[in-house]
Amino acid sequence: MAIMGYGVVEDRGNSLRVLDYGVITTPPDMETPQRLLHIYNSAADLIKRYSPDAAALEELFFNKNAKTAIIIGHARGAAVVACAGLGIDLYEYTPLQVKQSVVGYGRADKHQVQQMVKLLLNLKDVPQPDDAADALAVAVCHIHSSQMGRKLGNR
Amino acid sequence: MAIMGYGVVEDRGNSLRVLDYGVITTPPDMETPQRLLHIYNSAADLIKRYSPDAAALEELFFNKNAKTAIIIGHARGAAVVACAGLGIDLYEYTPLQVKQSVVGYGRADKHQVQQMVKLLLNLKDVPQPDDAADALAVAVCHIHSSQMGRKLGNR
Repeated sequence: MAIMGYGVVEDRGNSLRVLDYGVITTPPDMETPQRLLHIYNSAADLIKRYSPDAAALEELFFNKNAKTAIIIGHARGAAVVACAGLGIDLYEYTPLQVKQSVVGYGRADKHQVQQMVKLLLNLKDVPQPDDAADALAVAVCHIHSSQMGRKLGNR
Repeated sequence: MAIMGYGVVEDRGNSLRVLDYGVITTPPDMETPQRLLHIYNSAADLIKRYSPDAAALEELFFNKNAKTAIIIGHARGAAVVACAGLGIDLYEYTPLQVKQSVVGYGRADKHQVQQMVKLLLNLKDVPQPDDAADALAVAVCHIHSSQMGRKLGNR
């Protein structure tokens, strides 16, 4: 099952508010073209629904094997095209930047990040599943960084 | 400079006819979102112009490093979304299958493939650049294979 988490966070100046979060999932027997189209359409629907000022992605880390990297690249390409087609600026942050921004500590573990996401976004529980919590952390990181993050660059 | 070759070939039963070929290029300083959107739009324009029965891609080989694989995956994802969104069936062939189909010999070199593409498509010269010739070879392979190639699968 391919999963891509998302989180929509509103910056209210002195507080943050979650508008939406979740995961885009596709059934395991879905073929690549339909899967990528589903990711593209789902991302476009979210953008149209919330009209965000910007979108942020977690920067890919290159310690994956090439097969995994291509699968991630496919899905990411579909989501990026949806954002770019609708004129949404894209930023990206490394996992280290996300941890530093959300927890204040680059070596924070997943549990610490999730607890801080819960706290900062004033949620009753840690958001589930993990991919959605991760996406919210990237959104918080982007707001904290006041868009100082690296704009999705030339690659 | 990111380059993606394409070739449009018509199957006339007992002969093949080239309708178009070339490369989708993006300037080196273009940022990823705009680059992927350009690939998406260019692929969609080609599909709308020629209404092909199917599209075929060269299967990715996994001996690349992860960074290269992600870059290829991004571009491929953008093109796949364009095809899928317009209802075009996608097939993929390994370089070995393309060589076997076009030259009849899986270990054929680039030069042999290009000469056979020129011959089979009744062209005066070897198509340029190489990426366009490669794309035409994949198209010829697909027609030769009578769509017996692996439909772009689940990954």
